[in-house]
This record gives sequence, structure tokens and C-alpha cells, in this order.
Amino acid sequence: MANKTDNTIRRHQVVIIGGGFAGFTAASRLRGAPVDVTLIDRRNFHLFQPLLYQVATGGLSPANIAAPLRGLLGKQANCQVLMEEVTDIDVQNRSVCVFGGELKYDTLVVAAGSRHSYFGHPEWETLAPGLKTIEDATEIRRRVLSAFEAAELSQDASERRRLLNFVIVGAGPTGVELAGALAEIARHSLKEDFRHIDPSDARILLIEAGDRVLSSYPADLSEKGQRALEKLGVTVRTNASVEEITDAMVRLRTEAGKETIPTKTVLWAAGVETSPLAKKLAVATGLELDRAGKIAVDPDLCLAGYPEILVLGDMANCLDKEGKPLPGVAPVAISQGKYAAKLINNRLRNRPTPHFHFNHRGSLATIGKSSAVAELGRFHFSGLFAWLLWLLIHLMNIVTFRNRLLVLLQWGWSYFTHDRSARLITGEKSTSEIAELASPNTP
Amino acid sequence: MANKTDNTIRRHQVVIIGGGFAGFTAASRLRGAPVDVTLIDRRNFHLFQPLLYQVATGGLSPANIAAPLRGLLGKQANCQVLMEEVTDIDVQNRSVCVFGGELKYDTLVVAAGSRHSYFGHPEWETLAPGLKTIEDATEIRRRVLSAFEAAELSQDASERRRLLNFVIVGAGPTGVELAGALAEIARHSLKEDFRHIDPSDARILLIEAGDRVLSSYPADLSEKGQRALEKLGVTVRTNASVEEITDAMVRLRTEAGKETIPTKTVLWAAGVETSPLAKKLAVATGLELDRAGKIAVDPDLCLAGYPEILVLGDMANCLDKEGKPLPGVAPVAISQGKYAAKLINNRLRNRPTPHFHFNHRGSLATIGKSSAVAELGRFHFSGLFAWLLWLLIHLMNIVTFRNRLLVLLQWGWSYFTHDRSARLITGEKSTSEIAELASPNTP
Repeated sequence: MANKTDNTIRRHQVVIIGGGFAGFTAASRLRGAPVDVTLIDRRNFHLFQPLLYQVATGGLSPANIAAPLRGLLGKQANCQVLMEEVTDIDVQNRSVCVFGGELKYDTLVVAAGSRHSYFGHPEWETLAPGLKTIEDATEIRRRVLSAFEAAELSQDASERRRLLNFVIVGAGPTGVELAGALAEIARHSLKEDFRHIDPSDARILLIEAGDRVLSSYPADLSEKGQRALEKLGVTVRTNASVEEITDAMVRLRTEAGKETIPTKTVLWAAGVETSPLAKKLAVATGLELDRAGKIAVDPDLCLAGYPEILVLGDMANCLDKEGKPLPGVAPVAISQGKYAAKLINNRLRNRPTPHFHFNHRGSLATIGKSSAVAELGRFHFSGLFAWLLWLLIHLMNIVTFRNRLLVLLQWGWSYFTHDRSARLITGEKSTSEIAELASPNTP
Repeated sequence: MANKTDNTIRRHQVVIIGGGFAGFTAASRLRGAPVDVTLIDRRNFHLFQPLLYQVATGGLSPANIAAPLRGLLGKQANCQVLMEEVTDIDVQNRSVCVFGGELKYDTLVVAAGSRHSYFGHPEWETLAPGLKTIEDATEIRRRVLSAFEAAELSQDASERRRLLNFVIVGAGPTGVELAGALAEIARHSLKEDFRHIDPSDARILLIEAGDRVLSSYPADLSEKGQRALEKLGVTVRTNASVEEITDAMVRLRTEAGKETIPTKTVLWAAGVETSPLAKKLAVATGLELDRAGKIAVDPDLCLAGYPEILVLGDMANCLDKEGKPLPGVAPVAISQGKYAAKLINNRLRNRPTPHFHFNHRGSLATIGKSSAVAELGRFHFSGLFAWLLWLLIHLMNIVTFRNRLLVLLQWGWSYFTHDRSARLITGEKSTSEIAELASPNTP
């Protein structure tokens, strides 16, 4: 595997694993630095994950929230992009193994992110897709829309009921946003679409094992969030954990006992675990992983004993001033990416760098149209103003100007028409699958 | 399978198979007619196929050229949409068989379109994808972009050469448009993207068995088209037919003998055959199919002996005044859809309908950016004006206002920046496939 070589003297080699918020920010902040940067990602694009649920619910197209990494970094002369998969990290020899060979590093930045976790039930993955990739989003879109299509075809009332039950497991921001968007679809976007069913008969259930939705938010906002969801028609079930998922039902354990919900569509938003690279790093360095698989980092985001390795984003167990772990959200990852670039730059100049500090400005989660909850320091608010703030902040953070325009245009359109025009069912064999869903007892 | 029933008297049942240009136009033109319309399609959207090559080349997103059929027809009270697959047609009992049952019709409109044809070589389908569906387009996009990624990774000069050879078979409008767009990508969109290859080294070969490109156009426009392609860097090979395709090369037979072109990426634009429903209809009615599988229709687009069955679009072998078959293009299909609705309306009122007449206004094909060829009756022209005309006509014909805006915005953006931001490689296992492409001799 070729590191970038020319006839000049060998420069400091920075290898960055992952082109998400942390890795991409670190790479672009090293523009102009006296280093050669190699950014490795399995995908050829940077993904704006906070809006992935809008792809899953037919509001936006995948390309609206994804920007090709080569396009973003192509003009940065000291940076190359490798579309490759990291299979291992050799911390002794300071090299990264990929399918095509290995890459030497002087500084390694590991920011490979996380996948959803099924808490010891890997068999649930095909039954209840999570929402981390473009493929996840189009798969969820396919399942949700196919369930409505199958209900329209079905001759059987109880089967139709089952098809119109949608269960979302996990009431963090992703689960809440998915539930809100599904409720909007059922009540507004599909309003006039069918002849044999009324889409607003759809029942959207949001299941949460904890005692409140949006548990990372202050309690008053959780309450407001739950009320906003209920106003949209979402049924919220807290203190309910999933015991079993099949292709026809979900069984819950609640305070009142067990309960079976007939459904064909279960979406998973209940938890994440880090990339398997975290485990490999932990084994190689002897460092510990926390319960979610995050690796402990020093206050400068480096690994203890390996100052040349930085771990950022969802993979890092990074504590704030009060000793609480930082959440796995975009602002933390971006802030860490900036810090990593600064640290690398300072070290090359033999300058010290103060410890990483995350300046928590606030949290925002949207709940359907025109509603959101926001925590900005001591200020808690909800409703239209919070929603407008959410809109503005997300729009400004989308990476390319072109996508910002496209998203704005589509949001504006949807706002006034309730239309979600990206509601395409893609993938081969759609009709046979839908026919099977509609009449499960006939071949 | 429920036909739409209420307590009113049974109305005339029109079943339309296919939601393409012909079928969708027929359905929407029957708005307000005293009939019940059922539109059956395997997909849940109407697709604007003329711009599919722009999805395949990363310029547009699938949802920009697709509009959900339920959204388009939801407000039309006398029309229902069935997302189903027609498995057979019983012309004696006047019913259509679908997975979920059967539907009775009084009038049947068959407009199920066509697929690409491999002329007796079905094994070429996986090696050389054609361009008829959204899935085809994203698959072509994946293959083209993956070839560049693999070339960037490859250590071997001849392998890199092979990866940067792109072969397009068939120089009709689709082949010409694909070749032009690929040349644009290689020379402009990817210009600064790579470090180990120069994308403009890519060789784009357009193979045509006939003696000129765009053979359905007047000879002077074929010549201008070929010159425009060559100016973009496309190598045009006429009088060359494909003898063999493998995953590493294409073998051609030319006037000068045989020739092998090493390549990993072959795209098929060489010909189409009608939906298998045409054959079923022919067997059931005793009517003949032409070489391309089109079924002969009477001058009123009905089948001889079966005046209650109309066949439209790519499936119909419909002759113009001079006895020449009409081409399988959108304007013909739209015109036939309008005629079908008029005929059905007139029959219900016992009014005669003059024979179908296609008013051929002209043909347009685009060749990369700022160039096109146009035939408008006696006027032939090419270059920027033809291209602007192409732009305008295509934009005006996209079905929804929202998509018109989105396409316009992206075209404007691309025009000034050469950017094709929808160049996403989607689908699982992208990196392992690319690593395999880059080093085919190692596992």
C-alpha cells in the first residue's frame, strides 16, 4: 500500500481512520500543516447522520445528506483519501492493516464510530433494522412503505391491523425523531394515497426501557417531548423492555406483566456499540473498554502509553470536568476533531496543548413538524421556536452549500404541502414481498 | 382482490397495467370520466426514464426523477393504485391475474414497457448492466465509481489501465448520453479527486454495430453527434459488434477482424425487448409479435378482435402514416396514453374516435455539457442552442413541480462547478469488492 511519496524528505505521516464528523474535521483542519494525511473510510462519502431519519421517512434523498469525501478533500494537497477497510492496527510497528496492504503512521487518529447494538440478541438485526447507514435508511423506508402497501392489499382485518402497527424500540433522540416522522407520514403525507385503508389508523408505538423519553435531557423537557409525541398520535410506553422479536410480533416486559404486540415493522433505536476496532485497540494496548465498548482516553484524547494514537468521537470514553462521559453526538465529535488537528500541529512545533475541553452549548431534538425540545444551558424550551432553532442549526452544519440548498428547498416544500416525495420503495422483488406480507398464509 | 365497490351501480372498469408515460397519462386523463380506474404497477413510483442516465452518472438522486404514483393520483377519486405484479391476462374472462388474486376489466390498457435485451446472451446481464430501473442506475453508478477507486488502489499498471477502460455497447440516445456523461465525469468532476491516477486517463469506448451513432436521427446529426463525442474524448467504434463479454474484457468483431478490450466495466445500451406480458397476450389472442417482441395494434391501438384491449408505449407495434413503426420514446407513449383515455371516453358516449396519429415534433439527444443534437422537422441543429432546448423540454416534462425545482437547482449547480455530488457508492461490502478489483490475483 503506497503512502504518498515524492522526492522531498519524508513528512510526518498522519493516518485517520473514519470520515465521520471527528475524522473528517481532523483531516480538513490539518490543511496546510507540514504533514501527509491519509483518511481511510469504508464509504466514499461523509454522512450527515443527524438527518438520516429523514431519509428513512422519505423526506430527503441519500445524496442530500452525504458528500463525497474526495470532493470535500480533493483540493487539500496534503491529504489523500483511501476507500478501504481497516482490518487491524499494529501499535508496536505503528502501522494500519487494510485489505490491500499496510500503512505506516507517525500519528494515528482512530474515529471509526459505532453501530447499533442488540444487547446480546444479534438475531434481532434482520428483524429490527437500526439507523446508522444510508442502506439502513433506505431499508427502513422500504419496510415502512411496504407495510402500508401490504395493508392496502390485505383482505384480512387482523392482518391489516398487524401491518399498521409500527414499533420503535428506544426513545433517545433517534427513536423520538423517527416516531414523530412516522406519525406525520401516517396522518398527513399518505392521507389521500389509499382506497382500502386509512393510513391514520396506523399505530406508532415508542418503547423505552427507562422511565422517560429523551433521558439525556432534563426531566421537564422529557415530559414536554412525550406530550408532543402523544399529540402527534404516538403511543409512548416507558419502563417497557423488549423480550422477544419475531417477524410477526414484539413481546414486551412491562411493570404490569408481559404484552405481545402484533407487528411486521420493528425499528431499532435502542443503543449503540463501538466499532470492533476499539476492542482490537484495547487488546493491543491493554487499555479498558467501558460497557458500550468505548476506549478510555487521556485528557488529551490520546491512549495511555501511546501518545501517538488519538481516539475520537463515538469510540472514545472521554470524561467532562465533572467526570461524566461525553455523549456520542456530532458536536462532541467535531470538537474532538478540531482538537486532534491542533494537538498534532502543536507537537510538530514542540508547543504544549491544553487538555481537551468540550464546551457544551446545548441539545436539541425535533418531534414531528413545528415542534422540538431544546436545552441551552439553563434555558429549556420547546415548541415552534425550538424547532426553528433545530432547523437552522442542522441546516448550517450540512457540509456542502449545494446540499444545504437542496435540503432547505425540500423542507420548505414539505412544510407547506406535507409532501414527502422521496417515498420510493427500491430494491428488487418489492411486489412479491408485499404480496407475501399481505397474505402470509398463502405461498 | 377487491375492485373498488360502493353501493352505487357498478361502473365501467378500466384496468391499466404499467405506470410509465403511457399508463400514467391514460390514468390521469380519465379523471372525471364515469369509470373506475385501477392502475397496476410493480413499483410505487412513476419514473422519468429520459434522465435515468444522470442518476447513473451521479448528477441527480433517484427521487429527483421519480414521483410516487399514489401521490400523483391520490386526489383522483375514480382511480386506485395497486402495487402488484401482473402474472397473466385472461382475455376470454376479461380478467387480470396478480399475486393476490384477479381483477375483472371492461377495458384493459396494457403499457408494461420494455427491458433491455441481450440478443440471446442472457448471461451478459450481470456483466453488462442496462439502464431501465432505479436499481440499474445505482448499480451502474456503483460500478463506475468503484472502478476509479480500485484503480487508485491498484499497484499494477496494466490492471489500472483495464480498470480505467469503460465500454458502452450501443450508440442510440441512451448510449450516447451515458458516454458523454462518463467523459464529463472523468475529465471534470473527478479532476482533483485522486492522488495515484489521473481520472482523465480513463478511456470511454462507445461500441455500435451499425454504421453510425444515433441511427434514428438524420445522417448529418449522427455525424455532428459523433464529432461532439470525440471532442469530449469518447472513442466511437461503429460497425463493431460484441462477441463475448467476461468480467475482464470485451471481445469485438470489427471489419478489421477481432479485437479484445481489457475492461471491468461494460454498460449495455444496445437494445430492448418488451415485457413478457406481450408474449402472453400474443399467445392468448393469436396475434403476432415483431422481432423486438412488440404486439401489432390496430390504428386505434386496440388488438384485432379484442377492441376492449389497448396496448400502448414500448409494447405496441404501432405504424405511422408511412407504415414505419413508431419509436419507443416518451412522446409516443404520452400521446398514446392521451388517445387511450379519449377513446374510452368516446366509446362510453357512443362517439367515434379518429385513428391514432402521432404528431412527430422532433428528436433531441444530449452529448455531455452544452452540446446536443436536435431534429425539428426540416430543421437540424446541434450545439449550445440544441442543448438549451433539450434542457427546457426535459425540465418541463418532469412530473412534479418539486422535482422540476430540484433538478433545475442541481443542473445549475453542476453547470458552474462541474460537481456531481450524488456520486455515492451504495450497497454493502463496497470496500471488499473494490479491494478485489484492485488486486484480482490475491484473495
